Amino acid sequence: MEVWVQKYGGTSVANAERIKCVANRIVETAKTGKKLVVVVSAPAGMTDSLIGKAKEITHKPNGRELDMILATGEQLSISLLALAIQELGENAISFTAPQIGILTEPIHTKARIKSIPTEKLRAELESGKIVIIAGFQGVTEDNEITTLGRGGSDITATALGCALHAAEVEIYTDVDGVYTADPRVVPEAKKISRISYEEMLEMAGSGAKVLHSRCVELSAKFHLPIHLRSSFDYSNGTYIQEGETIMEKAIVRGIAHSKAEAKITVTGLPQSPSIFADLFAEIAAENINIDIVVQDFGEKTTMTISFLVSREDYESAYDITAAFIRRYEGARVTAEKDMAKASVIGIGMRSHPGVAARVFRTLADQSIPIEMVSCSEIKITCVVKEAEIEKAVRSLHEAFCENGEMAL
Amino acid sequence: MEVWVQKYGGTSVANAERIKCVANRIVETAKTGKKLVVVVSAPAGMTDSLIGKAKEITHKPNGRELDMILATGEQLSISLLALAIQELGENAISFTAPQIGILTEPIHTKARIKSIPTEKLRAELESGKIVIIAGFQGVTEDNEITTLGRGGSDITATALGCALHAAEVEIYTDVDGVYTADPRVVPEAKKISRISYEEMLEMAGSGAKVLHSRCVELSAKFHLPIHLRSSFDYSNGTYIQEGETIMEKAIVRGIAHSKAEAKITVTGLPQSPSIFADLFAEIAAENINIDIVVQDFGEKTTMTISFLVSREDYESAYDITAAFIRRYEGARVTAEKDMAKASVIGIGMRSHPGVAARVFRTLADQSIPIEMVSCSEIKITCVVKEAEIEKAVRSLHEAFCENGEMAL
Repeated sequence: MEVWVQKYGGTSVANAERIKCVANRIVETAKTGKKLVVVVSAPAGMTDSLIGKAKEITHKPNGRELDMILATGEQLSISLLALAIQELGENAISFTAPQIGILTEPIHTKARIKSIPTEKLRAELESGKIVIIAGFQGVTEDNEITTLGRGGSDITATALGCALHAAEVEIYTDVDGVYTADPRVVPEAKKISRISYEEMLEMAGSGAKVLHSRCVELSAKFHLPIHLRSSFDYSNGTYIQEGETIMEKAIVRGIAHSKAEAKITVTGLPQSPSIFADLFAEIAAENINIDIVVQDFGEKTTMTISFLVSREDYESAYDITAAFIRRYEGARVTAEKDMAKASVIGIGMRSHPGVAARVFRTLADQSIPIEMVSCSEIKITCVVKEAEIEKAVRSLHEAFCENGEMAL
Repeated sequence: MEVWVQKYGGTSVANAERIKCVANRIVETAKTGKKLVVVVSAPAGMTDSLIGKAKEITHKPNGRELDMILATGEQLSISLLALAIQELGENAISFTAPQIGILTEPIHTKARIKSIPTEKLRAELESGKIVIIAGFQGVTEDNEITTLGRGGSDITATALGCALHAAEVEIYTDVDGVYTADPRVVPEAKKISRISYEEMLEMAGSGAKVLHSRCVELSAKFHLPIHLRSSFDYSNGTYIQEGETIMEKAIVRGIAHSKAEAKITVTGLPQSPSIFADLFAEIAAENINIDIVVQDFGEKTTMTISFLVSREDYESAYDITAAFIRRYEGARVTAEKDMAKASVIGIGMRSHPGVAARVFRTLADQSIPIEMVSCSEIKITCVVKEAEIEKAVRSLHEAFCENGEMAL
């Protein structure tokens, strides 16, 4: 039995009218004979409204109780969607995560899925039902309700796709795919029809917010194709799949960027690798991600470290660093808040070594100073001042994506 | 370990302010050292709003999906209440019915509780936590979410009280107890401080809507005292308890009444007990309760049957009866829609046989015709025209309840 998984976000189930539209779309697909598992988010706005109710009671709601509250959102939307499908004469049944047994770690508000049993799902599918599953939720071995954090419903859909060895996971969203650059910055950006897991992972990690990295990791591990597409029309979106199966070769797949970064620089530290480790461990303990790290041995006995954090973590990271360096005489911390990064991404880079040079030349031609650089096998990231980022992205897009294949 | 169960209705958890008030009251009680299990309804208005959402999708929502939708109401209020108690520095934990395992029959929208395991509850109580339980909900052996129907949260509280052998169940509501008559009809009505299970059962069955009959049945079976009281003040309400333990003896405990009744009369039926059974079976099959039945053998070969149904069931009951009697030549059905009933209730009647006579004389003195009569060991019910019911209740209350003990 081959199964298709579809996931609809909160805007698709925001009200009765939208729910009926989605139900129609699902029934159309089911009538082609496909066995369907549909994952749904809470109605748009409901999660915020529920958090608001909790915040009226306490500023720091306990994670366990907050998860109980938040889980009501999807419980409502799955049942309403099941009713809408039944109203169209098809057989549908909804399940919360605890009912199916979507097992997670015993961590609240950002649990990770450990396993999903599939017997019950398969039995319902075999009996001809469309199965509707609450996204975002999980349950622990002790029957505690958990939630998966941001992008949780996408993760539920992907994990179900993996567990059921689905033919494909379709993620319906309010954008119609992944673009060669953010269309709000680069009007010439084109929709990417196919992208490899590795490229998508780098795009997601570099600021393209269309899909959570964990979805891409999971689907890559299980060789599960994901089709990211719009719930408002029937055109194809972007397929995320094995790189080897993509016919259309490109050296550069797209340009991702992220604003709201901050750079912290420490000078005058004694030259010792353990100091790195200690500082970054203290920052990590506060759940702050450090992005790009550059180390410079300026003098014989001291070193300079620069690293990038997201701007929302900037103050905490700065405070931790400032407190940390008091142990070292002569060490100083400085920060630049208005940074941004642009990343050029493509698996074709592996076999085409000239990409980095061309990236630097492109930015130099625009007189954009590069503050930091980081390269992986399939990605080159340049940190620039935020004021320069849109110009940087546009010039890189023009150089790599607009004139067909890049000539090297 | 002695446990107290408290139940708060929807108005008590309607908004953050009310929830904080209830939390305060709970914490006060907990500080006296009592082990507390608190049952909560959905916030006032939420159940109707959720039904409204389902009705926007379909006019006949499937019971299973409707139960999933309705269960979100209590899941929200239990978690918010737990947060409010935690905010006051006490330890609280909330559980949905599926989490505790409040097992019901596999019937939707009006399931009956089969069993409640108590190990988890006892463990949480012993660890010093206040345990908050979602009322109105249940779960089947197949992990399906059910609801208990009207008065469901009271039933949850009573069933928990029975399962935990609680010292007492306190039901907090927007009335402050059971009255000798409905105070909207009889301004002189007094709050009853103690009432026996049997009397309460008759009061509930005769129109006093303060507590579901199933709560009284359950608590009687387990000898569990129920204290029905107001959530707005600290005065005692009404204790429902074993008749033998009530010191204050009264022949008549109170007068209950119910408007919106309808009487259906069939004449010209052949004299045969099986005809009764057949007709009433057909009516029962439509889930219509038949209240008082009077049979009259007017002539040698035919009989007359009259029975009372609630007005909302009147049309269906009439149609069923009209269709039924077509099998019997000469039979006719007539109906009177505007009926009501008044019941005089008291366990003291068992040993005081003159009550019925005095009831009839009281109504006769007021020139109120009695349409039907039904007597049990502890109750006398008179059916009168609805236009006469308030006069009837007031005169019966004056005769039996206002001048202290009735002289016989």
